[in-house]
Amino acid sequence: MRTYLDCIPCFLRLTLEQGRLLTGDEIVHRELINEATKLLPRFSLGLTPPRMVKEMQEVIKRRFPNCDPYKMVKDQSNHRAMELYPMLKEKVAQSEDGLLTAVELAIAGNVIDYAAKNNLNIEHEIQTILTGSFTAEQKSVFEYDLFKRDLAEAKTILYVADNAGEIVFDRVLIEEISAGRKVIVAVRNKPILNDAIMEDAVFCGIDKIARVISSGVDSPGTVLEYCSEEFLKIFKEADMVISKGQGNYEALTEAPRNIFFLFKVKCPVIARHAGSQLGNIVLKKI
Amino acid sequence: MRTYLDCIPCFLRLTLEQGRLLTGDEIVHRELINEATKLLPRFSLGLTPPRMVKEMQEVIKRRFPNCDPYKMVKDQSNHRAMELYPMLKEKVAQSEDGLLTAVELAIAGNVIDYAAKNNLNIEHEIQTILTGSFTAEQKSVFEYDLFKRDLAEAKTILYVADNAGEIVFDRVLIEEISAGRKVIVAVRNKPILNDAIMEDAVFCGIDKIARVISSGVDSPGTVLEYCSEEFLKIFKEADMVISKGQGNYEALTEAPRNIFFLFKVKCPVIARHAGSQLGNIVLKKI
Repeated sequence: MRTYLDCIPCFLRLTLEQGRLLTGDEIVHRELINEATKLLPRFSLGLTPPRMVKEMQEVIKRRFPNCDPYKMVKDQSNHRAMELYPMLKEKVAQSEDGLLTAVELAIAGNVIDYAAKNNLNIEHEIQTILTGSFTAEQKSVFEYDLFKRDLAEAKTILYVADNAGEIVFDRVLIEEISAGRKVIVAVRNKPILNDAIMEDAVFCGIDKIARVISSGVDSPGTVLEYCSEEFLKIFKEADMVISKGQGNYEALTEAPRNIFFLFKVKCPVIARHAGSQLGNIVLKKI
Repeated sequence: MRTYLDCIPCFLRLTLEQGRLLTGDEIVHRELINEATKLLPRFSLGLTPPRMVKEMQEVIKRRFPNCDPYKMVKDQSNHRAMELYPMLKEKVAQSEDGLLTAVELAIAGNVIDYAAKNNLNIEHEIQTILTGSFTAEQKSVFEYDLFKRDLAEAKTILYVADNAGEIVFDRVLIEEISAGRKVIVAVRNKPILNDAIMEDAVFCGIDKIARVISSGVDSPGTVLEYCSEEFLKIFKEADMVISKGQGNYEALTEAPRNIFFLFKVKCPVIARHAGSQLGNIVLKKI
């Protein structure tokens, strides 16, 4: 997906959010914004948003080398999601269509970290996930039959993870689909926003149920040009690719293979691009 | 109110919104954003947001002199609100405390234009306004008793209007408070965003029930340094000043007199500043 001008205010918002996580000094926040601002006129809108965010990330890294501003947010999300894990498993076990429930939970899990980052009521979101189910309207783009059909024929699956915390919800889905199949889970190579990296995957026990690899990228979306050889080989050869979250959607919609995208719609630009609505969940094969 | 760094993404969003209203040419949109971006590092955060928006407005005006990008939005809001006028009057007439209902409607009217601008379901908002009432939680900052007490003693009232369309809702409140009092309504001098100017006030019949003046400003908030002598004299001498909307709140919280601020909270920065919550209504004397 290309970048739209609507993304530019969001890039600055992300820079400010990170600045605030790293220091309480408003003068530094202002300087970070000013430096990020200087990059904007040079950006090519033909590139994907995760590429731009990676470039703007250099502004943060120049001042705070080796920083990981979302470390605490990620740890909290992982812990809270792990506490929920037994309830998620129970919900799947109790449901008529366990796979469907696991798919819905994996998408719903995408909202928890977002709540954490935006000071929303995280417990409220969790209750909604655990007790509720999605309406037909919320699932206006939800190609579950296609997903089930392709899954039935797949022997190897590449699962491209998104955020910390959320990967516990992914674990529930991975456990549903891994019987008789080889599942490889890809996480980011280095900290970028609150995206899951290897240590998050290990903390959440993903390495016990699947092979976990690094995609090689430190952009908040799996930009193929940045990916490792190892990842690209698996990406090409896997029978099925499952991509989680908006960042991976942005990065991979024009990739040279079919992918199932699973995400919660959190932004109007993506809502339009995916033919869905803000707040809806999407399961879409492209 | 000073400007916060959170406001900067919003300034760019406003520039983009206006560019899109004026032309479908994305190259122009990009150029407008780039030019607006160049102004950002120079901004003093000590100044109020409406001052900054006015400065960024020059970017639009340089390319589109004498433009009025929100003309159609304003006309639509005026028309729709005038259609509602009899129902608003009826709601006030039917209620136990007509003044309270008129105050609530005047604040609620603040959301209609916002809905129009953001493609929300305007009819849904209207139904909520006409059929609903506000909860105690939504009115956590609502100094109605103070408002009533000051009103009882006031002989002259300056009513600082906000948006087109919304002024029909203001009209209902002005009609409730004008018996035995002199009410002067101030609108912006020239088009700025969807703020009400003289022609909106005349279209909505405000000139038939009160004296309407221009404040002299073309910033989206009544920045006193830009105001006319005529406005400043009335502002100083009026027994009571009623200020509508966030823009006027941003511009006037540090003004050298007491003001009643009435607005719907549409932004997290203002929510924090006013000690309220996003989506709430505020009636506050400062």
